Amino acid sequence: MELNGIKVIAFDADDTLWVNEPYYRKAEEEFCDLLKDYMPKETCNRILFDIEMKNLEVYGYGIKPFALSLIEAAITISDHKIPISVVTTLIERAKKMLHHPIELLDGIEETLKELSKKYRLVMATKGDLLDQERKLIKSGLEDYFHHIEIVSDKTPDHYRKLIKQLDIHPDEFLMIGNSMKSDILPVLDVGAYAFHIPYHTTWAHEIVNEDTQHDRYIELKEASELLDYL
Amino acid sequence: MELNGIKVIAFDADDTLWVNEPYYRKAEEEFCDLLKDYMPKETCNRILFDIEMKNLEVYGYGIKPFALSLIEAAITISDHKIPISVVTTLIERAKKMLHHPIELLDGIEETLKELSKKYRLVMATKGDLLDQERKLIKSGLEDYFHHIEIVSDKTPDHYRKLIKQLDIHPDEFLMIGNSMKSDILPVLDVGAYAFHIPYHTTWAHEIVNEDTQHDRYIELKEASELLDYL
Repeated sequence: MELNGIKVIAFDADDTLWVNEPYYRKAEEEFCDLLKDYMPKETCNRILFDIEMKNLEVYGYGIKPFALSLIEAAITISDHKIPISVVTTLIERAKKMLHHPIELLDGIEETLKELSKKYRLVMATKGDLLDQERKLIKSGLEDYFHHIEIVSDKTPDHYRKLIKQLDIHPDEFLMIGNSMKSDILPVLDVGAYAFHIPYHTTWAHEIVNEDTQHDRYIELKEASELLDYL
Repeated sequence: MELNGIKVIAFDADDTLWVNEPYYRKAEEEFCDLLKDYMPKETCNRILFDIEMKNLEVYGYGIKPFALSLIEAAITISDHKIPISVVTTLIERAKKMLHHPIELLDGIEETLKELSKKYRLVMATKGDLLDQERKLIKSGLEDYFHHIEIVSDKTPDHYRKLIKQLDIHPDEFLMIGNSMKSDILPVLDVGAYAFHIPYHTTWAHEIVNEDTQHDRYIELKEASELLDYL
């Protein structure tokens, strides 16, 4: 693979730089536990997911949409019988999630430190700007990144715009992330490079089932392997 | 004023391009009406504002933070006695706000059309990216803007970063907006130009009481007056 032309490396944030999805899984588990008198766990999980998907277009991604969907799901699941104290609990838990400390993934810091000497690094995420900025500052990784690019979704069109804004060509752009659906397939689609570092927990909405073979694509086990290629 | 060097003109969005604040004022009024059995309107408004301010740091700006604060305020104001149906009403109203049609302010479209022939126009807002993108598309103004810049807050540091990202100097940057606190004072502070177009409704959090005199500052009555200067 010819990587000499790469100018900008974009990193997805959640579950690429730091732990994220497991906190949502834990919050969902606690939620269905809170509502276990109204509905068995599996049905609870399914209804919550359906409500999240229905709200995705209007709310977007992140903890605040998640909190609003949890409240709506609690009302639906309990057939409007939930005591108001449950709503208070859900709001408090959402605030706790927003304040959660950052757990960096293995090898991230050393890898970014090396790569930032040779490339312009940006963070490209579809989370909420305020949350992601706060996480970046708390992570201690801020100095390695030129800036944060927030996109409302990660489709080929969004990547085309991003690459245009960075004032480079697609073959000078490399995206690194844990989601095939968001970080890899749309990037390959626009003619850029994409390296996949899978994470053990993936949100159902982000899962794609297909084998990827592509001459601008590599799958890695962890971030430090990037230094073998770049 | 020497404006020949201007390369990028950034427009604030809410209450600069289109109507926004009056919808929040209306939502607050309807909220305190919904809770009038628990508390008189003035106290209700004050408690809601206090909760919004307390949550601003953790939630940021926009309709989703507003919705979560309304739910929290309803619980506080009713001393945990509010029926769950009120929470459902608040969630439904928030979704309605997110889907509200766009009302452009006077003279905006013609002015942007003219300015976009000579300058790079960007939209610079601290709202939520998904919401602001959706509003921009619904507004029909999308083609006049090079891109959207979302900032988590509008402090001098945020403008310094923005100007650096745009790859220009401060004296090549002009900001246009309705908020002295967010769009004007921090911009003058970093050595750029700022034109103020006041709007009749301003959120209490955005109000500053001081006379501004500055050689890189002009106050206008409406957007079309921009064409007299640019």
